[in-house]
Amino acid sequence: MQANSARAEAALVQYLDVAQTVPQRLHQAMLYASLGGGKRIRPLLVYAAGELSEGRSLDNYAEASCTLDAAAAAIEMVHAYSLVHDDLPCMDDDDLRRGRPTVHKAFDEATALLVGDALQTRAFEVLALAPGNAEVRLTLIAALASAAGSRGMAGGQAIDLDSVGAKLDLLGLQNMHRLKTGALLSCAVQMGGLVAGLAPQEMRALAEYATALGLAFQVVDDVLDATADSQTLGKTAGKDAANDKPTYVTLMGLDYAQKQAKELQAQALASIDAFDLRADALRGLAALVVNRRK
Amino acid sequence: MQANSARAEAALVQYLDVAQTVPQRLHQAMLYASLGGGKRIRPLLVYAAGELSEGRSLDNYAEASCTLDAAAAAIEMVHAYSLVHDDLPCMDDDDLRRGRPTVHKAFDEATALLVGDALQTRAFEVLALAPGNAEVRLTLIAALASAAGSRGMAGGQAIDLDSVGAKLDLLGLQNMHRLKTGALLSCAVQMGGLVAGLAPQEMRALAEYATALGLAFQVVDDVLDATADSQTLGKTAGKDAANDKPTYVTLMGLDYAQKQAKELQAQALASIDAFDLRADALRGLAALVVNRRK
Repeated sequence: MQANSARAEAALVQYLDVAQTVPQRLHQAMLYASLGGGKRIRPLLVYAAGELSEGRSLDNYAEASCTLDAAAAAIEMVHAYSLVHDDLPCMDDDDLRRGRPTVHKAFDEATALLVGDALQTRAFEVLALAPGNAEVRLTLIAALASAAGSRGMAGGQAIDLDSVGAKLDLLGLQNMHRLKTGALLSCAVQMGGLVAGLAPQEMRALAEYATALGLAFQVVDDVLDATADSQTLGKTAGKDAANDKPTYVTLMGLDYAQKQAKELQAQALASIDAFDLRADALRGLAALVVNRRK
Repeated sequence: MQANSARAEAALVQYLDVAQTVPQRLHQAMLYASLGGGKRIRPLLVYAAGELSEGRSLDNYAEASCTLDAAAAAIEMVHAYSLVHDDLPCMDDDDLRRGRPTVHKAFDEATALLVGDALQTRAFEVLALAPGNAEVRLTLIAALASAAGSRGMAGGQAIDLDSVGAKLDLLGLQNMHRLKTGALLSCAVQMGGLVAGLAPQEMRALAEYATALGLAFQVVDDVLDATADSQTLGKTAGKDAANDKPTYVTLMGLDYAQKQAKELQAQALASIDAFDLRADALRGLAALVVNRRK
């Protein structure tokens, strides 16, 4: 996992090699938004699913490896863009992210808006220019767009906005998170599987793993928001309660939420049983998501 | 041109068929932002350049025609997204667009942010899912991303933000507009030429046409901003002067700017001389851009 973390970081740096490019301030803000820490869970999922091809003869291993790097960088850029826009005053209005001032605090609001816009654009550009099979790259672009767009992440954010004070029930909450965070996590696994050239049945197993993992991710997020402090999280803690937003903790209670996270982890692991040793990286990531402290 | 206008509108409607999709409010705001009039200059440029293949044997005329529709819809979505974000309070803070309240006025700021985000995503999704040659579609995606991103439109907007009160000279102004509006106009022509399968020399001629047209477009924009009223324009007139932004009119004077627009039109026409009758649609668009009243 450490090797893949370093690989994800290198891919991001490679594909965001813009520090000296005009306009410099915008490009420096894009780097600030993308390279300031972050757990890199989505790139790690891309690589972990990409490793499932192990033991097969890939037509061109080096080329597929570059395509995976592009996918990892692209999905992290989309994630980074969503955080920058999510933190804006008209959305969550947050000052702290990854232990540092948010982009609109460190720069300004207009720059933060453009940073998010341009990071999203760059994500699709990276995939369009990456090495690898053309049909596979188009499928990656379509998958990322579907997960990020109005029927995915952006749609989930719209539902989230409407939910303040609206008292979502558990099903409504799950649906919102399935779009807002689940879609992109599922997409990460899907992208890795596409590059690995997995069979439809294997893709379905991966999708089940990702659904359970996405739910677990959000349950743990809610637990941490309720129990950890801002310094540990690197972002403002207790925001959901302060904003009267429904969470798994407020709906199920803390104890049950923690048990539920473990249950979802077990579900995720069961989905990928058939992959044997090849799926060890995916198993490690499930543990990382559930046991994380921030 | 009327036929192509109707075709552009139909392509947009087809690719934004989301009115009944959840979340409805977000999708309705996306339609509001995209279908509310607009001159559709970029889609018209796509079609006009796409027509340059006339007389050649396209392998599959129907397929290329669908690819053109996707390109036209995608570039207009990117344009629409940029207007929605540009009108936000942290950018130009404008209340009026195409004769109606801007998206953040008709809906709210957070929705406008998500509308822009999701329209951009949808543009790339449309191209990834369109019919047509895979390599051509990847080239279209790369071209659109390059024109829209931090080294194109978004970069131009960043330079524009920094230019308030900074007294750009003519060269600085041209550079800003070359990115902010010129890149996407050039991209429209380039996309049409790519689908038409033009030769490199023909693509260069098209690029020259687009550069002159892009400059003319902006000179006319500045003339209209200084001379027309808000009702005619459908957006707030006189904003540049009010914001102390440099324009072609403030730098060159009104008379000279009007002459310059005609001169640029002549340059654009000269660039496409070699295309003969096939380029009549491009000639018509050059006239439209220079003679428009809004």
